[in-house]
Amino acid sequence: MNIALYQCPPLPLDIGANLLRLEQQAHEASQQKADLLVCPEMFLTGYNIGAEAARKLAQPSDGFAAARVAEIAKTHGIAIAYGYPELGASGRIYNAVQLIGSSGQRLANYRKTHLFGELDTSMFTAGEDDFPVVELNGWRLGLLICYDVEFPENTRRLALAGAELILVPTANMTPYDFVCDITVRARAFENQCYLAYANYCGNEGNIQYCGQSSLCAPDGSRPALAAQDEVLIVGRLDRKLMESSRALNTYFQDRRPGLYTDLVKP
Amino acid sequence: MNIALYQCPPLPLDIGANLLRLEQQAHEASQQKADLLVCPEMFLTGYNIGAEAARKLAQPSDGFAAARVAEIAKTHGIAIAYGYPELGASGRIYNAVQLIGSSGQRLANYRKTHLFGELDTSMFTAGEDDFPVVELNGWRLGLLICYDVEFPENTRRLALAGAELILVPTANMTPYDFVCDITVRARAFENQCYLAYANYCGNEGNIQYCGQSSLCAPDGSRPALAAQDEVLIVGRLDRKLMESSRALNTYFQDRRPGLYTDLVKP
Repeated sequence: MNIALYQCPPLPLDIGANLLRLEQQAHEASQQKADLLVCPEMFLTGYNIGAEAARKLAQPSDGFAAARVAEIAKTHGIAIAYGYPELGASGRIYNAVQLIGSSGQRLANYRKTHLFGELDTSMFTAGEDDFPVVELNGWRLGLLICYDVEFPENTRRLALAGAELILVPTANMTPYDFVCDITVRARAFENQCYLAYANYCGNEGNIQYCGQSSLCAPDGSRPALAAQDEVLIVGRLDRKLMESSRALNTYFQDRRPGLYTDLVKP
Repeated sequence: MNIALYQCPPLPLDIGANLLRLEQQAHEASQQKADLLVCPEMFLTGYNIGAEAARKLAQPSDGFAAARVAEIAKTHGIAIAYGYPELGASGRIYNAVQLIGSSGQRLANYRKTHLFGELDTSMFTAGEDDFPVVELNGWRLGLLICYDVEFPENTRRLALAGAELILVPTANMTPYDFVCDITVRARAFENQCYLAYANYCGNEGNIQYCGQSSLCAPDGSRPALAAQDEVLIVGRLDRKLMESSRALNTYFQDRRPGLYTDLVKP
């Protein structure tokens, strides 16, 4: 399976323009034989948009934007994961990512559970205990968003549920470059899974995004890595590589859950 | 507080010779104003020595080698953490690290809980639920050994218990260089603590150690970093750096332990 990551500057407050460039990238990614296209956090609307705009632009997970993304996915025969402000049934707004399959079917929706400071909390309600793991092209796949991946417990939980690939749409900014460079690689290695980290570049208000989107492999390598500019990168998931890496790094056989109980104390 | 890490080739089966070079390094580290000297895993006897030798050379934690290390610590006014095969009261042999203070007092003893394959299991019994955290020069300090650090749960547990510095004597070999280069930095950053990783270099039987001992800081930097050769490196713990990094990276305020229960399921 091939994954394309679209690293771009945010295009705030313009859902139509973002759907347009999503279609262009889906076309390009499909040309490059990608089976899945991953976009950054809050791709549909931009991220640093404030609570009022987030509420105004929020979409139900089966709303008009989801329908348009499903059409794009179907037209280009490619699955798409995209970030957006989700309007929940309760009227609450979540920072969400939805995965839509290449036939246009809605496969999974995840609401960010670990909110990042005032920026997130001013706009969003934190997601509850719902970390879907679904199958795509024979690979078991989980979702996280940005700050979630900095907590080793979240990737671990998905890996324990069988995730072989974790998609992480993000909006990571300076001075947190360390996460792009080091943390995401550690997560893939310690969980012996693939991890796709799709970030913004450029600016949004006073935020400077740090790019460096990557596909990280279970053996510590990076089959795809972006620099600081707008780019579509494509990397391949290799089951043989994962299996030989798992034979060498037997973390899941060697864990001792009975020693970890402090991690779940309130 | 300053920490010295002694990266060296193992000197197998010769406790006397290892105590001799420990004294030389304690002298040198003390000259360089280090308050603590950390040696690799199983420093006292070498690591890849086989079950028979490990049993023959195993020491109680208050045995003659501990007494000699205490003398060295006292003479040079420096705390010492060293790896050794521990003979438990039950007659079992553990892969252990002991921390001895600069007045010669035994401060903490830790038994490796996550054994690394046949190499460890042929020689050792795994440690049980005992992860001491003690104070040294005003810093709260925990201990792990080699493979233990590759499991994010172990550093997390120590950090939740208040560890600001985690000492990790190790015997890490090719092809696991990724751990030296990436994993240990991720651990320090995700727990907003210092981590001192003291490795061997050179060969021992069919093992090629990968060096790259380091002191990793909570902000992702490495105040001390070795290459592949024998060396004593010294780095400084900076409380102000730790505090400003913790203000920026509020992982411990933002954790959600209620979402991590899968991590402790058997």
